Amino acid sequence: MVYKYIHIVGTSPESIAEAMKDAVDEAAKSVKNLRWAELGRVTLRIEDQKIEEYQAEVKIGFEVERGQR
Amino acid sequence: MVYKYIHIVGTSPESIAEAMKDAVDEAAKSVKNLRWAELGRVTLRIEDQKIEEYQAEVKIGFEVERGQR
Amino acid sequence: MVYKYIHIVGTSPESIAEAMKDAVDEAAKSVKNLRWAELGRVTLRIEDQKIEEYQAEVKIGFEVERGQR
Amino acid sequence: MVYKYIHIVGTSPESIAEAMKDAVDEAAKSVKNLRWAELGRVTLRIEDQKIEEYQAEVKIGFEVERGQR
Amino acid sequence: MVYKYIHIVGTSPESIAEAMKDAVDEAAKSVKNLRWAELGRVTLRIEDQKIEEYQAEVKIGFEVERGQR
Amino acid sequence: MVYKYIHIVGTSPESIAEAMKDAVDEAAKSVKNLRWAELGRVTLRIEDQKIEEYQAEVKIGFEVERGQR
Amino acid sequence: MVYKYIHIVGTSPESIAEAMKDAVDEAAKSVKNLRWAELGRVTLRIEDQKIEEYQAEVKIGFEVERGQR
Amino acid sequence: MVYKYIHIVGTSPESIAEAMKDAVDEAAKSVKNLRWAELGRVTLRIEDQKIEEYQAEVKIGFEVERGQR
Amino acid sequence: MVYKYIHIVGTSPESIAEAMKDAVDEAAKSVKNLRWAELGRVTLRIEDQKIEEYQAEVKIGFEVERGQR
Amino acid sequence: MVYKYIHIVGTSPESIAEAMKDAVDEAAKSVKNLRWAELGRVTLRIEDQKIEEYQAEVKIGFEVERGQR
Amino acid sequence: MVYKYIHIVGTSPESIAEAMKDAVDEAAKSVKNLRWAELGRVTLRIEDQKIEEYQAEVKIGFEVERGQR
Amino acid sequence: MVYKYIHIVGTSPESIAEAMKDAVDEAAKSVKNLRWAELGRVTLRIEDQKIEEYQAEVKIGFEVERGQR
Repeated sequence: MVYKYIHIVGTSPESIAEAMKDAVDEAAKSVKNLRWAELGRVTLRIEDQKIEEYQAEVKIGFEVERGQR
Repeated sequence: MVYKYIHIVGTSPESIAEAMKDAVDEAAKSVKNLRWAELGRVTLRIEDQKIEEYQAEVKIGFEVERGQR
Repeated sequence: MVYKYIHIVGTSPESIAEAMKDAVDEAAKSVKNLRWAELGRVTLRIEDQKIEEYQAEVKIGFEVERGQR
Repeated sequence: MVYKYIHIVGTSPESIAEAMKDAVDEAAKSVKNLRWAELGRVTLRIEDQKIEEYQAEVKIGFEVERGQR
Repeated sequence: MVYKYIHIVGTSPESIAEAMKDAVDEAAKSVKNLRWAELGRVTLRIEDQKIEEYQAEVKIGFEVERGQR
Repeated sequence: MVYKYIHIVGTSPESIAEAMKDAVDEAAKSVKNLRWAELGRVTLRIEDQKIEEYQAEVKIGFEVERGQR
Repeated sequence: MVYKYIHIVGTSPESIAEAMKDAVDEAAKSVKNLRWAELGRVTLRIEDQKIEEYQAEVKIGFEVERGQR
Repeated sequence: MVYKYIHIVGTSPESIAEAMKDAVDEAAKSVKNLRWAELGRVTLRIEDQKIEEYQAEVKIGFEVERGQR
Repeated sequence: MVYKYIHIVGTSPESIAEAMKDAVDEAAKSVKNLRWAELGRVTLRIEDQKIEEYQAEVKIGFEVERGQR
Repeated sequence: MVYKYIHIVGTSPESIAEAMKDAVDEAAKSVKNLRWAELGRVTLRIEDQKIEEYQAEVKIGFEVERGQR
Repeated sequence: MVYKYIHIVGTSPESIAEAMKDAVDEAAKSVKNLRWAELGRVTLRIEDQKIEEYQAEVKIGFEVERGQR
Repeated sequence: MVYKYIHIVGTSPESIAEAMKDAVDEAAKSVKNLRWAELGRVTLRIEDQKIEEYQAEVKIGFEVERGQR
């Protein structure tokens, strides 16, 4: 098997877990056979002295189908 | 523009996101113009074999007003 | 005092905080005097293009009782 | 919002800043909505005992338009 | 010159070198002008208590042809 | 599911892959349900100016059976 | 002697060296006895697909005067 | 609870432990409720080919009193 | 040969070297054939604004006897 | 081919690029067949509250001629 | 005892282990009392879309003879 | 000015500070104009279940005299 990665930053106003889910949902739109992911840097956008958005860098691994690249 | 950082550890009995919010709320009391933040080390205080507190190191960037330092 | 560490990966379908709690609960079954913990790598298992499980590597420190090892 | 990254190595015979500019200009040809970037490894190609080229690894974040991927 | 990277995980039942070769062969199917590569994380899949597969994360640099992107 | 890690240094006079296999074989003697592993530091013992032994630090993850710890 | 650090992000439309200079000039307004500095993360703000600003995180060490803190 | 950090470099002609003590003593002059600390980079100043001073970067955590910031 | 590691935090009111010695003495009570060790994170417990305890994380390698595990 | 490295800190009152050039020029005086280099830590010497010198740690790779070491 | 290091990049068309052996053989030509080594960065040179050469950075420790430096 | 580094491992049966002193004394025998140093990895050699030797990797910077290399 061969795997590739995509790097996506998902966001959520609520939690890091939701921001990771956002990233995976986004990846699922354009890539098949997602297998696992790893959390990278977690950042915040702050506006008016409040957290506006949790941002989660996620590195998502997916399996490449050998016969059809 | 010039930015500075403050390093704060926020805490919450519930989640990492709440602990980050605690840190930002704390920073907002003494610093203006908070812009973004980045999550550092996440630790736990354990008592009686249970999680007592989630602790989130947060590095918060704020804009320094040029004219009035 | 002397402390030792155990390294556990807790899991949860819901959040990183729950996955950390799972790791601490697991550790509490076999080790006494848990004191603190630190979050390591956070990963995801993905199935059918959705997050199946949040996985949190947790390094848990506990106090060793001098008299009775 | 969702963000993705591209990783590009820009080059310049003059400076690191020019090499970063080269990377951003290159990215701008194929990707819209570039937002920020971060400098990674900086290397040099040396020929005849002189610096031929400054090489700057740059990780560039861009916003993905939700409606149209 | 401008370079880009692709991140691929090659696999082999035999060795890390073979897994790296697998990654480069895979990259060569879709990208021209491969120039160099760097080994990242090396992992193993284990089944029935034996190594099933060596997995080598490889970051491969290739030259982008200026005139024709 | 809950996972734990063991850290073992396997050795081989021949290659890193063999040293990793040595570590996994060793772990299999005392731990059930090995799932994956990751290569850490690779070192060499040198004697009489020649490589005597390749040494591979391997971190091996195994699944803990919930009912029977 | 005792030293402390301040962490500042200087900016410049031109170069990393100018952004570092901006950070040192800023620090000099509020802190005496600056001694050395170290470059941290270098980032870019991009607008309209062009570099708007080089941003240099700088950690600046200064000597604390023992008698008068 | 909320914690903040100060970063201090303590020095000693004798040992790293003394340099850390110097940093903590210094911090105690201006900050209350010091709780823990972590050693960072250790450096040496050398003069006339001899060690003049051990320098210990120390990151010291202290508790912020909620009611009175 | 095969080696394993134990991770211990030794403590001392005096110095880092004593805290490392404490960790090795502790390990020697339960593990045979200790071979080498490496210092990890060094921390301090502070009480009443003074250093109460130096804490040294030590990773200790020991040789596993092949015939008798 | 076999390569070795030299580690040099070049300096310049003007820019990081000039400091890297200084390091390469210095290396070229004593070593042949320089091939590539990589930027390490960047520091500043500050005097009278101004940047006196940019300092660039550079790791320079050169090819060793097999026949004549 | 006192030890020093040399940093060498060995190469091989076959495997990482052979590239490490190449580095140690090279070091043995000019330095006595080699004791141990550690693998650093592993890179590849690629030509015509195939791996031409495995390159292994190796840091080799050797014992300095006290009486005769 | 131009600086170079030497990497030495000093040893002592007593403490890390003594091991660093050993490294600097060793460097002073063959290199002039030592300026500063930084502590790297700290390891222990253990024999008969006791610490035999503290080992301190030290990276020592020295000034190169421009006119006479």
